Amino acid sequence: MKLLRVGTAGAERPALLDEHGTLRDLSGIVPDIDSGLLADRAACARVREAAAAGRLPELAGGNDPGGLRTGPPLTGIGKIVCIGLNFHDHAEETGAAIPEEPIVFMKAPDTVVGPEDPVLIPRGSTKTDWEVELAVVLGRTARYLDTHEEALACVAGYAVANDVSERAFQTERGGQWDKGKNCETFNPLGPWLVTADEVPDPQALAMRLWVNGELRQDGTTADQIFPVAEVVRYLSHFMTLRPGDVVSTGTPAGVAMGQPEPKPYLREGDVVELEIEGLGRQRQVMKSA
Amino acid sequence: MKLLRVGTAGAERPALLDEHGTLRDLSGIVPDIDSGLLADRAACARVREAAAAGRLPELAGGNDPGGLRTGPPLTGIGKIVCIGLNFHDHAEETGAAIPEEPIVFMKAPDTVVGPEDPVLIPRGSTKTDWEVELAVVLGRTARYLDTHEEALACVAGYAVANDVSERAFQTERGGQWDKGKNCETFNPLGPWLVTADEVPDPQALAMRLWVNGELRQDGTTADQIFPVAEVVRYLSHFMTLRPGDVVSTGTPAGVAMGQPEPKPYLREGDVVELEIEGLGRQRQVMKSA
Repeated sequence: MKLLRVGTAGAERPALLDEHGTLRDLSGIVPDIDSGLLADRAACARVREAAAAGRLPELAGGNDPGGLRTGPPLTGIGKIVCIGLNFHDHAEETGAAIPEEPIVFMKAPDTVVGPEDPVLIPRGSTKTDWEVELAVVLGRTARYLDTHEEALACVAGYAVANDVSERAFQTERGGQWDKGKNCETFNPLGPWLVTADEVPDPQALAMRLWVNGELRQDGTTADQIFPVAEVVRYLSHFMTLRPGDVVSTGTPAGVAMGQPEPKPYLREGDVVELEIEGLGRQRQVMKSA
Repeated sequence: MKLLRVGTAGAERPALLDEHGTLRDLSGIVPDIDSGLLADRAACARVREAAAAGRLPELAGGNDPGGLRTGPPLTGIGKIVCIGLNFHDHAEETGAAIPEEPIVFMKAPDTVVGPEDPVLIPRGSTKTDWEVELAVVLGRTARYLDTHEEALACVAGYAVANDVSERAFQTERGGQWDKGKNCETFNPLGPWLVTADEVPDPQALAMRLWVNGELRQDGTTADQIFPVAEVVRYLSHFMTLRPGDVVSTGTPAGVAMGQPEPKPYLREGDVVELEIEGLGRQRQVMKSA
């Protein structure tokens, strides 16, 4: 299923994009797309059955999806855990060594915006950068897992994320990356939460990002140093992952930081577009905070 | 006011500790102690007036506070932002340079437990450490603030926090500190949220921590490199702080990491007690995860 949330920010309604590309209203079946739904197999089954039986009403305005804002596909996110330098080519472009184990940092849930919402370049920023990433959404609690099978069983679904990053804040202002990862609007998520059953192999997804129409990132999750199952298993030994948590699994080469000087960091008016195979497409216009 | 939450984990009720040390039930006036309450001046005024007028009922079991578990004094925390190496003596004991600007890392809200709940030593941990910290709770949104006055106006209150840390996870397993800061139960908070009006000078608070009865940390917030007002002002230029967010402002000298070998890292059965002047006292027994 492709689950999403549409409407004005803070007042989104749960919806489903069916196989014909029609938006269906889920608000009669579930209150929202959140940890409560993801952890509730009966509720998920109700949604699935209603969709299959054609019992979901079309969303008002659903014939003109452009007229409805798409919000983040998930609300009530508990935490967002991110993996740094998780692609061979991206580690190389930054000049970093290939990590021996996953590098972990965090984004606060309130950085999340919809996939077409503006991204705000922070005041004083000169190095705002892009990162297309595969976001993994948890549906079950992951704690001290042993196997990759157990890890994948905790995954509810996948989404596109842009792990927007201010490189000077991240690395030149005290050393811990979180300072450059948590500016407001720095985590466009969506358009859809695609349930795990529709993503048979999370390590075979093409991922691309364009800036002002120019292809900048052109990678695949096949190049991840630590695949999704290992990331979730590994993290579960350092923290408890819970339903509604999100894990962003790193970006391939092609970020601004990895380019020759003058590096093409984002400026007001720039347009970033990104997509992951089967998970949909985002488009953000850069604005000034 | 001293606000707190009592009851079994996940089912706490809001309460107030009055000037006579009697627990008063707030559940008839406010649903909980959360961002909604902190951001709602009318609701805060209702609580204050009811307390002053003696209209708050005693909490059942309030004569025997030991019989009621104290939970975290705040629920629905949006994010927890932590400042590293923010005391001169602690920076020295770790061998680090005095930071030129605040070092920022994050703890996930789901690490928070009550002030007397057990702390779980992670599996495989050999370097679990303590850190008594002054936690600042936001009551208003802080975004691109200019002055210390504006910053302090955003503070709803203060609480004691133990920023429990696994030093090997933090510094020997990939480099970003978050990996050693987010283990389950690693953020005892409380017992009280003391409203800012009762803390006229947050830079004049004694803070102490004992392990198995031995005094290990004996500092004061007067030794903070970046005081509370500067921390909040500074952070507001890198992220938006919102009502219900928590900022942990760093620890003084005396952590296990700063001791001579063999460093006295925490083991199962150890008892950690900590207090900050006017903000109450915590006590945790270490258990194995």
